[in-house]
Amino acid sequence: MNSNMEKPYVVGIDIGGTNTVFGIVDARGTIVASNSIKTGAYDEVDNYVDEVCKHLLPLIEANGGADRIKGIGIGAPNGNYYSGTIEFAPNLPWRGIIPLAAMFEERLNIPTALTNDANAAAIGEMTYGAARGMKDFIMITLGTGVGSGIVINGQMVYGHDGFAGELGHTIIRRENGRLCGCGRHGCLETYCSATGVARTAREFLTARTEESLLRAIPAEAITSKDVYDAAVKGDKLAQDIFEYTGQILGEALADAIAFSSPEAIILFGGLAKAGDLIFKPVQRAIDENVLNIYKGKAKLLMSELKDSDAAVLGASALGWEIKNAK
Amino acid sequence: MNSNMEKPYVVGIDIGGTNTVFGIVDARGTIVASNSIKTGAYDEVDNYVDEVCKHLLPLIEANGGADRIKGIGIGAPNGNYYSGTIEFAPNLPWRGIIPLAAMFEERLNIPTALTNDANAAAIGEMTYGAARGMKDFIMITLGTGVGSGIVINGQMVYGHDGFAGELGHTIIRRENGRLCGCGRHGCLETYCSATGVARTAREFLTARTEESLLRAIPAEAITSKDVYDAAVKGDKLAQDIFEYTGQILGEALADAIAFSSPEAIILFGGLAKAGDLIFKPVQRAIDENVLNIYKGKAKLLMSELKDSDAAVLGASALGWEIKNAK
Repeated sequence: MNSNMEKPYVVGIDIGGTNTVFGIVDARGTIVASNSIKTGAYDEVDNYVDEVCKHLLPLIEANGGADRIKGIGIGAPNGNYYSGTIEFAPNLPWRGIIPLAAMFEERLNIPTALTNDANAAAIGEMTYGAARGMKDFIMITLGTGVGSGIVINGQMVYGHDGFAGELGHTIIRRENGRLCGCGRHGCLETYCSATGVARTAREFLTARTEESLLRAIPAEAITSKDVYDAAVKGDKLAQDIFEYTGQILGEALADAIAFSSPEAIILFGGLAKAGDLIFKPVQRAIDENVLNIYKGKAKLLMSELKDSDAAVLGASALGWEIKNAK
Repeated sequence: MNSNMEKPYVVGIDIGGTNTVFGIVDARGTIVASNSIKTGAYDEVDNYVDEVCKHLLPLIEANGGADRIKGIGIGAPNGNYYSGTIEFAPNLPWRGIIPLAAMFEERLNIPTALTNDANAAAIGEMTYGAARGMKDFIMITLGTGVGSGIVINGQMVYGHDGFAGELGHTIIRRENGRLCGCGRHGCLETYCSATGVARTAREFLTARTEESLLRAIPAEAITSKDVYDAAVKGDKLAQDIFEYTGQILGEALADAIAFSSPEAIILFGGLAKAGDLIFKPVQRAIDENVLNIYKGKAKLLMSELKDSDAAVLGASALGWEIKNAK
């Protein structure tokens, strides 16, 4: 704790395809200062890093300077913890392998670590959220895609190559599975992401004839939010879409439990906020599909990270984990 | 290493449904003495433990006495590492929860740890076999059932409850999956165990009309060994059975890779000894089914533990891991 007294802050940088959000965070998970830039506005990664630093440095100075920052944590798509690089991230403007952690470390002279966004969310949950004190849990992020961060024996699972924990790309439907962005068929992500829910809506609207509030929306424009709004108003078809989504997610989680037998599975992201609409079918499908010895053991929890802060908090939490030796 | 000099041996006890085999093992994995008794001959677990001790003690005395034994490791079905108990093991004569580790510890006054047989095999492989020096690997045991032992960050994955790592009971066929002994349908074990292979043989012989050496054997009596013997002789149907088995196992392993991204997957047990007959289709199915970022990374290896010794070696390896504090 001594070093936390001397260095009471960490910096979190969340790199998304649209925005890059960064902030200074204290040990209790309060964001004391933050700002953002547009990720897509910088074709050259050097210019991008310069621009983040230009906006970040005044925040650091206003809070006592770099000496009071224990570390910088970065959450980024396709982030590799071991190398501090992002590798072939399809939704970012920079091609190939980018040594982002080193680039920030050089400019700011603060130890910097990087991992993918779902892992960052898991570390954030362990540091500030629903997983405090837990040694074994699985974080599932339900966003545009489905991500996962796995913690075992109190440690993040990075795997041999730094890319472990892609439960969104395990195959949940082997026959006639949906085509995934990864080029394969039947990935969990094609069913249980926000885009998967919209896809289910279009399928259901075509296959079924009943009335639905969703029929007022052009099929291609339907979002998971539309499905949620309709379900809350009692729309049966919209509710069935959540049942279907939760069923498939629960089936996948029952298999994940057979892998690491976690204390809890934590759902995070837009779909998780649908509450009982998604939690009830997920829980039922886990109970129906899990191996007997695991029945009733793993808790199904909602993330306790505030949505607007979660990305920066998650990334920042990695900053506390940086070894002083680095 | 100092304590290994003073205590150069461990004891391994492998408890199977038929036999209990035990031996004294040195740091290089040589079994210096061993013996066995029939597990099923003892309805009372107290009598059983007494009998094991009666045969084990002379071996211990002949090798310098209990002071030279660092620990006892037990591999047993449904073994729980945390509690040292076996819990509701369907193939053992004793019902309920049995505190086996404590029972041996009391009688022999040697620290004792217990885990399930697949975890013991994984620890054995890490200590004496193909996984020496590896921090992330998955052990798959292909026997009467399909077991798994998962090592992440150099540590055995026991999970929150001590029962993690049941990949044999993940669902690999959700539509028309085979009924499993666990009561569910489509478990990996129903396809890729020795009994799963025999089941496939019966299905193929019924569904297809071609000649096969296997038709000379009464369908209910066919074993995986018969299928192997026929395949080696060039029997097309028998070879197809291995293709089918390997395909399904490879599909399951591709998903397991997305979980922990291991350095290697190690196959152990009777089916693994079929060599190329099983390894080739497994490798091909992994390559065809694994997410792009993992392609070509995880090595597929055969266990290096000698078959006759593997169970005792695996159990014994747990003996080295026992904390002195215990």
